[in-house]
Amino acid sequence: MKSAVLTDEREVTVSDRERPTPGDDDVIVKIGACGVCMTDYHLYHGTFPAEFPVVPGHESAGEVVATGDGVSNFEEGDRVAVFPGIPCGECDFCKEGKQNLCENTVSMGGAGDEILDGAFAEYLRAPAQCLQDIGDLSYSAAAFAEPLACCIHGVDRADIESGDTVVIVGAGPIGLLLLQAFRASGAGTIIVSELVDERREIATQLGADHVVDPSAGALADHVDELVDRVDVAVEAVGLPTTIEEAHSITSPGGTTLVFGVPPQNESIEIDPFELYYRELEMVGVFALTQNTFSRAVTLLQGDRIETERLVTDELGLDGLQTAFDQMENNEGLKKMIYPNGR
Amino acid sequence: MKSAVLTDEREVTVSDRERPTPGDDDVIVKIGACGVCMTDYHLYHGTFPAEFPVVPGHESAGEVVATGDGVSNFEEGDRVAVFPGIPCGECDFCKEGKQNLCENTVSMGGAGDEILDGAFAEYLRAPAQCLQDIGDLSYSAAAFAEPLACCIHGVDRADIESGDTVVIVGAGPIGLLLLQAFRASGAGTIIVSELVDERREIATQLGADHVVDPSAGALADHVDELVDRVDVAVEAVGLPTTIEEAHSITSPGGTTLVFGVPPQNESIEIDPFELYYRELEMVGVFALTQNTFSRAVTLLQGDRIETERLVTDELGLDGLQTAFDQMENNEGLKKMIYPNGR
Amino acid sequence: MKSAVLTDEREVTVSDRERPTPGDDDVIVKIGACGVCMTDYHLYHGTFPAEFPVVPGHESAGEVVATGDGVSNFEEGDRVAVFPGIPCGECDFCKEGKQNLCENTVSMGGAGDEILDGAFAEYLRAPAQCLQDIGDLSYSAAAFAEPLACCIHGVDRADIESGDTVVIVGAGPIGLLLLQAFRASGAGTIIVSELVDERREIATQLGADHVVDPSAGALADHVDELVDRVDVAVEAVGLPTTIEEAHSITSPGGTTLVFGVPPQNESIEIDPFELYYRELEMVGVFALTQNTFSRAVTLLQGDRIETERLVTDELGLDGLQTAFDQMENNEGLKKMIYPNGR
Amino acid sequence: MKSAVLTDEREVTVSDRERPTPGDDDVIVKIGACGVCMTDYHLYHGTFPAEFPVVPGHESAGEVVATGDGVSNFEEGDRVAVFPGIPCGECDFCKEGKQNLCENTVSMGGAGDEILDGAFAEYLRAPAQCLQDIGDLSYSAAAFAEPLACCIHGVDRADIESGDTVVIVGAGPIGLLLLQAFRASGAGTIIVSELVDERREIATQLGADHVVDPSAGALADHVDELVDRVDVAVEAVGLPTTIEEAHSITSPGGTTLVFGVPPQNESIEIDPFELYYRELEMVGVFALTQNTFSRAVTLLQGDRIETERLVTDELGLDGLQTAFDQMENNEGLKKMIYPNGR
Ligand SMILES: NC(=O)c1ccc[n+]([C@@H]2O[C@H](COP(=O)([O-])OP(=O)(O)OC[C@H]3O[C@@H](n4cnc5c(N)ncnc54)[C@H](OP(=O)(O)O)[C@@H]3O)[C@@H](O)[C@H]2O)c1
Ligand SMILES: NC(=O)c1ccc[n+]([C@@H]2O[C@H](COP(=O)([O-])OP(=O)(O)OC[C@H]3O[C@@H](n4cnc5c(N)ncnc54)[C@H](OP(=O)(O)O)[C@@H]3O)[C@@H](O)[C@H]2O)c1
Ligand SMILES: NC(=O)c1ccc[n+]([C@@H]2O[C@H](COP(=O)([O-])OP(=O)(O)OC[C@H]3O[C@@H](n4cnc5c(N)ncnc54)[C@H](OP(=O)(O)O)[C@@H]3O)[C@@H](O)[C@H]2O)c1
Ligand SMILES: NC(=O)c1ccc[n+]([C@@H]2O[C@H](COP(=O)([O-])OP(=O)(O)OC[C@H]3O[C@@H](n4cnc5c(N)ncnc54)[C@H](OP(=O)(O)O)[C@@H]3O)[C@@H](O)[C@H]2O)c1
Ligand SMILES: [Zn+2]
Ligand SMILES: [Zn+2]
Ligand SMILES: [Zn+2]
Ligand SMILES: [Zn+2]
Repeated sequence: MKSAVLTDEREVTVSDRERPTPGDDDVIVKIGACGVCMTDYHLYHGTFPAEFPVVPGHESAGEVVATGDGVSNFEEGDRVAVFPGIPCGECDFCKEGKQNLCENTVSMGGAGDEILDGAFAEYLRAPAQCLQDIGDLSYSAAAFAEPLACCIHGVDRADIESGDTVVIVGAGPIGLLLLQAFRASGAGTIIVSELVDERREIATQLGADHVVDPSAGALADHVDELVDRVDVAVEAVGLPTTIEEAHSITSPGGTTLVFGVPPQNESIEIDPFELYYRELEMVGVFALTQNTFSRAVTLLQGDRIETERLVTDELGLDGLQTAFDQMENNEGLKKMIYPNGR
Repeated sequence: MKSAVLTDEREVTVSDRERPTPGDDDVIVKIGACGVCMTDYHLYHGTFPAEFPVVPGHESAGEVVATGDGVSNFEEGDRVAVFPGIPCGECDFCKEGKQNLCENTVSMGGAGDEILDGAFAEYLRAPAQCLQDIGDLSYSAAAFAEPLACCIHGVDRADIESGDTVVIVGAGPIGLLLLQAFRASGAGTIIVSELVDERREIATQLGADHVVDPSAGALADHVDELVDRVDVAVEAVGLPTTIEEAHSITSPGGTTLVFGVPPQNESIEIDPFELYYRELEMVGVFALTQNTFSRAVTLLQGDRIETERLVTDELGLDGLQTAFDQMENNEGLKKMIYPNGR
Repeated sequence: MKSAVLTDEREVTVSDRERPTPGDDDVIVKIGACGVCMTDYHLYHGTFPAEFPVVPGHESAGEVVATGDGVSNFEEGDRVAVFPGIPCGECDFCKEGKQNLCENTVSMGGAGDEILDGAFAEYLRAPAQCLQDIGDLSYSAAAFAEPLACCIHGVDRADIESGDTVVIVGAGPIGLLLLQAFRASGAGTIIVSELVDERREIATQLGADHVVDPSAGALADHVDELVDRVDVAVEAVGLPTTIEEAHSITSPGGTTLVFGVPPQNESIEIDPFELYYRELEMVGVFALTQNTFSRAVTLLQGDRIETERLVTDELGLDGLQTAFDQMENNEGLKKMIYPNGR
Repeated sequence: MKSAVLTDEREVTVSDRERPTPGDDDVIVKIGACGVCMTDYHLYHGTFPAEFPVVPGHESAGEVVATGDGVSNFEEGDRVAVFPGIPCGECDFCKEGKQNLCENTVSMGGAGDEILDGAFAEYLRAPAQCLQDIGDLSYSAAAFAEPLACCIHGVDRADIESGDTVVIVGAGPIGLLLLQAFRASGAGTIIVSELVDERREIATQLGADHVVDPSAGALADHVDELVDRVDVAVEAVGLPTTIEEAHSITSPGGTTLVFGVPPQNESIEIDPFELYYRELEMVGVFALTQNTFSRAVTLLQGDRIETERLVTDELGLDGLQTAFDQMENNEGLKKMIYPNGR
C-alpha cells in the first residue's frame, strides 16, 4: 500500500509498504480522509523528536476492512473515526478516563513517547477500542473529530457557565474550532482576535460576535470597548507573548486557557499579586480523551460544528509536501489528505 | 395608572390605581412588555393561594422613569428587565446566590410567601438590585428573561457535558425555551415529545433534532429507535404520569429533570432498585436566581434564543382576560401584554 | 488449592480445586484476607442470580505469587488489593472511567453479567490492571478497599461542600464506612440513625456527632431537634421505607442518596410537587470505579478510616458458612475470611 | 469606649472613642476576641494603603448588645462571629455569592476600597447580615472563622477529590489552618514544608503526614522521595520564589494554589510549554465568601479544626503594638486580642 513517510528532517516520500494485518483486538481501516495538523508539521521539521522513518497523520476516518478475532463491536464496512492514542489502561490517569495524561503514551502518527505508523497511508492498523462509529458522516468531517475533541476538552477545562464572555486569540483551524465549540457549549459574547483578514471574516461567519485585528491597537483596548468582563481568554496561537496578552485581559474570577503549543524552554512573566488579588486561573490544556473524542463525533453528526469552510486544500498522499509548504507560508486553513482518492 | 387586578378567583379587572413612588433603593419602571405565565393563570384560578386584590405579572421589562435617592447604578431612560423576587439577603441561600430558595420569599406579581403588586400595570416599583440592563433588546424579548432564567437554571442542574442526549417532554412556551437553552449549552441530540402538531413543528424550527408525537406509540419506543442513550430527560408538562415517563426513559448514569410544576399532594411511583442499579438521578428544578437572570439577558442579547416565534398573541392590559381564556383552551403559545401600548 | 464453593442455593462447601495459572496480562494473588459482604450472602441465598458452582468473595487483598509474561508493573512479593470487576475498556462508560456502569460487566466473585471465581480461595487469578499496590497496609484493612470505594463513590455523588449536614440511615458495616468517608471528606454535622444499640455506640466512636434510635420516635423529629438543615440524607439499609424516610428529611436544595440495595420490583412513593418546590435530588449510587478503589487504598494507608473496630469475626475458609449464619441473625459486623490462615 | 487606632504608619494608640449606635439594619457587637492578621500588620506598616486614623481588626467574635429596628434575626445576648466585608449586593459577583470579588468592597477593619472601623475596640457596629451565630463556641475559636473561611475557599478552589496528595508550603497560622481544612476535606497524603522547627512540629500534631525542612535540601527532592504525585501544591508564604517552587512540584493534571499574598509589582516566571504539556493549573485565591464563613463556623463548632494550639499570645487592646513587634520578629503564631478582657 502507499504511505507518505517522513524519512528525515524535512523529507517526505510516498513509498510502497506492506499493508498491515490486524492483531487479535485490532481493526484495519481504509483511510477515507486525514487532516494535516501542526504536529505533523513539527514532526516533519524535527521540532517534535521522532525516529525516522515514520508515517505521520492522526486526524483520520475511514472504513473498516478487516477485524481481528477478538473484535466483536466492529465489522467490515463500518465507517469510523480513529482515536490516535493507545491508552495503556493501567496508569491512574487511564483508569479515570484521562487518557491524554496516560503515563505510557503510544501514538499512531501523532506525538508520543512511542510513535506507531499513522494515517497518511492507504490503510491503518488500530486497536478496536480506538474506533468511533461515525454513521453516515463524511470522512472529511469525521477527520475533524480529533482536533475538535481537543477543543471540547479545552471548553471542559474552562468550565464556563452559559452566558460567559470568551475571547479567543488566534483564528487558525484550531481557533475556529474553539470558537464553534465554545459557542455550542453556552458561551455568551465571543470575541476573536486574529491578524489575518480572511480568518477574521470566517470567524464572523462561524459565529463570533466580534472580531478584532490586534495589529490595529492593543487587544485590551478593543476588548474594553466591546465587553464589561472577560470570563475566559483562550490562547490559540502558541506564543509566550499572546499567552501573556490573554492573561492580561482576563477579568477577576476568570480563566486564561493555554491552548496553543508554545515553544519549549521559553518563559512567560506573571504578576503573582494580580493572580491572587483578582483571583485568576491559568489553565493548561493538553490533547483529548476518549470521552471528548466520542462527543466530538456526536457534535459533528448533529451539525453543531461546521467543517467545510475550514478545509481549504484537498490533496492526495503525494500532496503532503505541498501541505507542509503551504503551512510554512501561512496559506489556507486545514489541508485534507485523501490517501485512497476522493 | 392602569393596572390589571385580580379581585377574586377568576375575576380580573382593569382599574385605576395610584402610580407608585420609589423608596430610597427603588426604581419605578414604565412597563414595556410583560408575558403571561402559568403562575398568573394559577393565581387567577386560585390554585396558587394569594390574597386578593393583587396585580399579577412577573415576566416584565421596561424603562426606568424614576429612581430613589440611594440608587446609583440606574438612571431615567435605562432599559431594564425585572427580576421578580426580592431576596432577603440574610438567609444562607441568599448569601450563596441561591435566591430561588430564599427562606423569606417576597415576589412582585409571582408566587411567594408575600406577593407585592406585579407588572400587569403601567408602572412597577422594584428595588434597584432587581434590575438588569438590557441595552437595546426589545421589551418583548426581554420579557422572556424570567422564564428563560428558570430554564437556564434547569440546564445548570442537569449538569450536562456537551454532546449529551436530551429528551424534552412537553413543548409549550417552557419546553421550547428549554430546548433552545439546552441546545445553546451543548446538548447533542435533542428529542422533543409533544402532543400538539404545531408545537412539534416549532420545536423542529427551533433546533430539535427529532420530534415525537407521544399519542402515536409509547415515548420509550420512539426514543429507543432514535438514540442509544438518554442522558437527560426533562419533564416540562407538569403531570405525575409524564414525570414517571421521563424517568423511565432515562439511561444508566442519567438524570431526570422535574421541571414542570405537578399538582400538589399527588405522588409518583419509582422503582428504587432501578434507581440504585442504573445509578439514576431525579432532580427538581425550582425558579431562577439573579445569576441565571443576568445570563438569560446575555443569551437573549446575543441572539442565542429566539422568542418572536413563541409570541402568538399581543394584547393590552385589558387583554389579560382573553389570555387566560386562551390558556384554558390551549390556544397559542406565549401571550404578551403591553400595558403602555406597543 | 482450597476454595469455598457455592454449589447450590444455601449450600457452601470447601473443596480442592486446581490452582489457577496466569494468562499473559494476569497475576496470581495468594489471598491474605477477604471480607464477606451482602452480595456474597445474596449469591448464597440465590437472591442474586448466579450459575452454580461459583466461588464468591470480592473484597480481597493478598500477595502476588505469579505474573503473566505481559505484566510489567507487578512482581512476586507485591502486596495488593484486588478490584473485583474486569472493565471491558470499550464501552463509553469504561472510556470515561465509570467502570461501575460498564456495559459488559465481568465480576470476580461479585455480582455481574458474568461471574468468574472469586477470592474465598487460597489463590485468585486477576488481570494486572485490577491490582492496587497497598504497601505495608494489613491485608485485613486492605480488604476494605472495595466496600470503602463504593462509599467514596457515594460521597462523590453526594457532591457535598465542607460543613454540610449529613444524616446516615443504617449503621451496618456500610453505614459505618459511609460515616467515616463523609467525615473524612468534609461533612459538618453527621447524624447516624440505627436500630442496634452497639452499632450506634460504634458510630459515636467513629465520629458521628449524634446518633439516633429510630425506634424511639420518628427520625424526622430527632433530626429537627438536632439540626437546622439536612443537606444529604443517605439510605444505607436497603428498604423502600427507609428510602422514603431519608427523602422526607432532606432539606430544600438537598440530596437523598439511595445507597442501600432495595429489593427488586418494589416501589417507593414520592411527592413530585415537593421535589420541584423544595428543589430536591434523589441520587442512586451503584458500586465503585477504579479511581475510587485507588483512593480507598490511599485513605486506608493514611489512617483516615478505621477498620479494626468493624471486624467482629475472623474465620478460615470453612468459616464462611458460620459467617452466613451470623448474617442471618444480624450478629456482629464485618466477617473476615483468611483463606491461607492468619 | 477603648479602641486601638492606627494614627499613622507604624503608629498604634489606644484611645477613647464614642461607642457606636446601630443603624436600622445594624447590630452592635461587644467584641469578645479578635485575632491579629498579616493584613493588620500591612495596614500598620502602610504596605496596604489606608487613610489614617483607622481601627483595624477583622477576625472577631462577640456578643450582640444592641440591634437596629429593622433587625429580626438577632437579639441581645446572641453570640456571633463577624463577617468583615459589607457586600454591595448589587454587583454580579455579590448576586452569585462571590462576595470576595464584590466590585464595591467595603471592609470593617480589613483591606478594601473603603475601610470602616474594625474590631480592635470594645464595640463594633456591623450590618446584621454580616453576623453568624456561634452558639457556645468560645470567642477565641470563633475569631478564627474569618481566616479559616479563606482557607476553606482555597480548598474549594483546589477542587480536590478525596485521597489527593497535597503539599503546603509555609506553616504560619494560615498554613496550619489550610493543613487542617484540607485534611478535613478529604486530602490523602499531606506534606508541609516550613523553615521553623516548632511550626513543623505543630504541623505534625495537627495532622500532616510528613513535614519537610526546605533549608535541608530542595523541596522537590524531599517530595519525590515521599510521594508519587502532587495533586495540589499550596503556597502559603507570600513570596514569588515559593510560588515558583510550588508550581514546579505540581504533577501533571495538578493545581498550584496561590494563597500567600505576594508583594505587588513583582513577577514570577513560568514555562508555558510545561503548563500546556503537563496540563497544569495555577489558581489564585482571594479572601472569603459569606458561604465559606458560615461553613467555617460549622467546622469549628464540630471540632474539625483545632485553634487553641495556634494561639501563642493573648493580649489586651494595648497589646496590639506588642503583637506587631512579635510578628516583625517571627515570634509565635496567632496573637489574640481581647478588647474587653478575657
Ligand atoms: N492544546 C492542544 O491540545 C492543541 C491541539 C491542537 C493544536 N494545538 C495548538 O493550537 C495552536 C493553533 O493551531 P492552528 O492550527 O490554528 O495554528 P495556526 O494556523 O498557526 O493559527 C494561529 C493563528 O494565530 C494568528 N496569530 C499570530 N499572532 C497573533 C496575535 N498576536 N494575535 C492574534 N492572532 C495571532 C496567526 O496569524 P499568522 O498566520 O499571521 O501568524 C494564525 O492565523 C497551535 O499552537 C497548535 O499547536 C493545541
Ligand atoms: N421549574 C420552574 O421553575 C418552572 C418555571 C416556569 C414554568 N414551569 C412549569 O413548566 C410547565 C410547562 O409550562 P408551559 O407554559 O410550557 O405549559 P404548557 O403550555 O401547558 O405546555 C405543556 C405542553 O405539554 C404538552 N403535553 C401534555 N401531555 C403531554 C404528554 N403526555 N407528552 C408530551 N407533551 C404533553 C401539552 O399539550 P396539550 O396542550 O395538548 O396538553 C402542552 O403543549 C408548567 O408545569 C409550568 O408550571 C416551571
Ligand atoms: N450502593 C452500593 O454500591 C453498595 C455497596 C455495598 C453495600 N450496599 C448496600 O448497603 C446496605 C447496607 O449494607 P450493610 O452491610 O451495612 O448491611 P446491614 O449490616 O444489614 O446494615 C443495615 C443496618 O441498618 C439497620 N436498620 C434497619 N432498619 C433501620 C431503620 N429503619 N432505621 C435505621 N437503621 C435501620 C439494620 O439494623 P437491623 O440489623 O436491626 O435490621 C442494620 O444494622 C445493604 O443494602 C447493602 O446491600 C450498597
Ligand atoms: N489568600 C487569602 O485570602 C489569604 C488570607 C489570609 C492570609 N493570606 C496570606 O497567607 C500567607 C501566610 O500567612 P501567615 O499568617 O501564616 O504568615 P506567616 O506567619 O508569615 O507564615 C509563613 C510561614 O512560611 C515560612 N516560610 C518562609 N519561607 C519559606 C520557604 N521557602 N519554605 C517554606 N516555608 C517558608 C515562614 O518561615 P519564617 O517565619 O522563618 O520566614 C513562616 O513560618 C500570608 O502571605 C498572608 O498574607 C492569604
Ligand atoms: Zn495510561
Ligand atoms: Zn433569603
Ligand atoms: Zn465497559
Ligand atoms: Zn458586590
